[in-house]
Amino acid sequence: MTSPADLDTPALVLDLDVIERNIAEMAQVARAAGVRLRPHTKTHKSPLLAAMQVDAGAQGITVAKLGEAEVMVDAGLDDVLVAYPLVGERKLLRLRALLERASISVSLDAVEVAEGIGAVGTDLGRPVPVLVEVDTGHHRMGLPPGEPSVALAMAIARVPGIEVIGLLTHAGHAYQAADPAELHRITEREALDLIRTAERCREEGLELREVSIGSTPTARVGAQADGVTEIRPGTYIFNDVQQMRLGVAPESACGARILATVVARPTAERFLIDAGSKAFSSDGGDGPPFPGRGVIAGRPDLVIDFTTEEHGVGHLTGDAASLSIGDRLEVIPLHVCSAVNLFDIAYGVRDGLVERTIPIAARGRSQ
Amino acid sequence: MTSPADLDTPALVLDLDVIERNIAEMAQVARAAGVRLRPHTKTHKSPLLAAMQVDAGAQGITVAKLGEAEVMVDAGLDDVLVAYPLVGERKLLRLRALLERASISVSLDAVEVAEGIGAVGTDLGRPVPVLVEVDTGHHRMGLPPGEPSVALAMAIARVPGIEVIGLLTHAGHAYQAADPAELHRITEREALDLIRTAERCREEGLELREVSIGSTPTARVGAQADGVTEIRPGTYIFNDVQQMRLGVAPESACGARILATVVARPTAERFLIDAGSKAFSSDGGDGPPFPGRGVIAGRPDLVIDFTTEEHGVGHLTGDAASLSIGDRLEVIPLHVCSAVNLFDIAYGVRDGLVERTIPIAARGRSQ
Repeated sequence: MTSPADLDTPALVLDLDVIERNIAEMAQVARAAGVRLRPHTKTHKSPLLAAMQVDAGAQGITVAKLGEAEVMVDAGLDDVLVAYPLVGERKLLRLRALLERASISVSLDAVEVAEGIGAVGTDLGRPVPVLVEVDTGHHRMGLPPGEPSVALAMAIARVPGIEVIGLLTHAGHAYQAADPAELHRITEREALDLIRTAERCREEGLELREVSIGSTPTARVGAQADGVTEIRPGTYIFNDVQQMRLGVAPESACGARILATVVARPTAERFLIDAGSKAFSSDGGDGPPFPGRGVIAGRPDLVIDFTTEEHGVGHLTGDAASLSIGDRLEVIPLHVCSAVNLFDIAYGVRDGLVERTIPIAARGRSQ
Repeated sequence: MTSPADLDTPALVLDLDVIERNIAEMAQVARAAGVRLRPHTKTHKSPLLAAMQVDAGAQGITVAKLGEAEVMVDAGLDDVLVAYPLVGERKLLRLRALLERASISVSLDAVEVAEGIGAVGTDLGRPVPVLVEVDTGHHRMGLPPGEPSVALAMAIARVPGIEVIGLLTHAGHAYQAADPAELHRITEREALDLIRTAERCREEGLELREVSIGSTPTARVGAQADGVTEIRPGTYIFNDVQQMRLGVAPESACGARILATVVARPTAERFLIDAGSKAFSSDGGDGPPFPGRGVIAGRPDLVIDFTTEEHGVGHLTGDAASLSIGDRLEVIPLHVCSAVNLFDIAYGVRDGLVERTIPIAARGRSQ
């Protein structure tokens, strides 16, 4: 079998032991809290890894885009939430085709979008399961919790061909939390706002079976809230510097790394690696306690100062060990979801050997 | 034929008239200045577009990575500069295979890297053409101009199997220019530093036939400098908001756009499109006079405030025209090279019709 040392670089390398541990841990969090786990597969875009998540106890999966759902259903995943508003004739035709092949639900935040989807449900002779998205502070999709969302949910429930099965939120603003205390407050707020809005919907006569919260930073605490029925974390399977920064994961739980080669040492202090923004993406902020455009595993003495498309440009700190052209480094990306979406394949590594290649089959499926 | 209105979104749409004009204009710049044009194809990663550049008068092409060179040579492009230090046994084996099929040159900044490549040249029985990279202010690859680079070039020239044919630089710091005057100063500095260093090499007995400068912002002025022999602009084929910001290209010369659909209008001021950082990348700064994470063509009344992976979240300015779910927008990316690298295909549009699909065949070829 191939050793990672034989791989050409840059390469996306997955530590299978770490990933299996991450998958098992989140499944246990959900089990212990009595909630369903529906991992967001936008992080890995791999049916193979999605199947591992389902085998470990996930109810089904979440995807962002219909194109991702198609790849997952083609591979045999049969319970998929498309957490995205589907708009336009082409999307609705594709949704219809998927509904005939698998258990599909969708999320949205407008009656107009529901009407398009409802027409598909009416045509098929069975309503399309819908989760209404609520804005718990991210200010992206959704109306505010409470009466605005209750009124919206009731209006959507009246659209023919639609069955409103629950409420959904994504606390993306958790990534802006300054410290663990603020993260905790955001998480409690997210869960409470959604639970109370769901209760008000039920008082209005809407049967809701799903109260679904998203995001890796909020999943573990949010799962404990009485009334939450589902968590949809994505990044937890790999983790990244953003999760390290939030205190959600240590470096040892970061299972996806970019293997890179040192290709230049133009000055005593400067080094270059053959991975830049076309390997890492430019997502994610840097700064203490994790300076640089990625964390070089086991080498806190090296800092990546900036990236251009194919170069990572860094410096050796004062007490750095030596570093030579040809040396290899493993870099934990700042935001792993966007980094993975740049690669067509990943290498699954265990015990120092490449155990398998893993196609990132839904890479680039943004439609 | 298909109309762009029939394309699913998000889609990468190329205006063929604009692109042909951009290709012809830069070819004319090179011709008028009496320099060779070797466009950097990292921008489009498409052999089809590379062939259009060569047909319009380019000498050959530049690529960043060996994997891009392989795709281009496979498609019949036969004169390729790999502007990247090739390090490691696998890379050298692949370089050897390419050298047997096409006219290949490489750039580098270290004797150690030259020794690996020289071994390939010695083995093949003909020296590998090498350009020595000089740091004219970007502080990425290369040694400073003048004596440090002269000494390096002389040392590399002594490596068996290597023919040093010229010097090369990339003024990536031009993108940080505060205004056109500073851009002009950086450009003159880049050219002058490289020309003088080449003259000193010649005084030392090194025959140099190539003095090669890079980057779209500096190409037009740099080409005029007496002593420059080659320009390697990349972005000019498409242009983007970065070029608009530098005053290098107007909106009408921006030929690559992300076609997106409005998928939500949760508040009177807010809108969402179905393109986020997985369509645009997170490259590039924003701010006046082009606020937002991309410029929406013909709609200065709309601003994209932030992107998440699959969402673009924007607002309508005070006097905005109406905007409804289902409306389509064309967005000029901040940094087009990284946006294009997220798509597997582009759609070439002319006269309101999709004339052809264009595979981004070297997408993701970072190795």
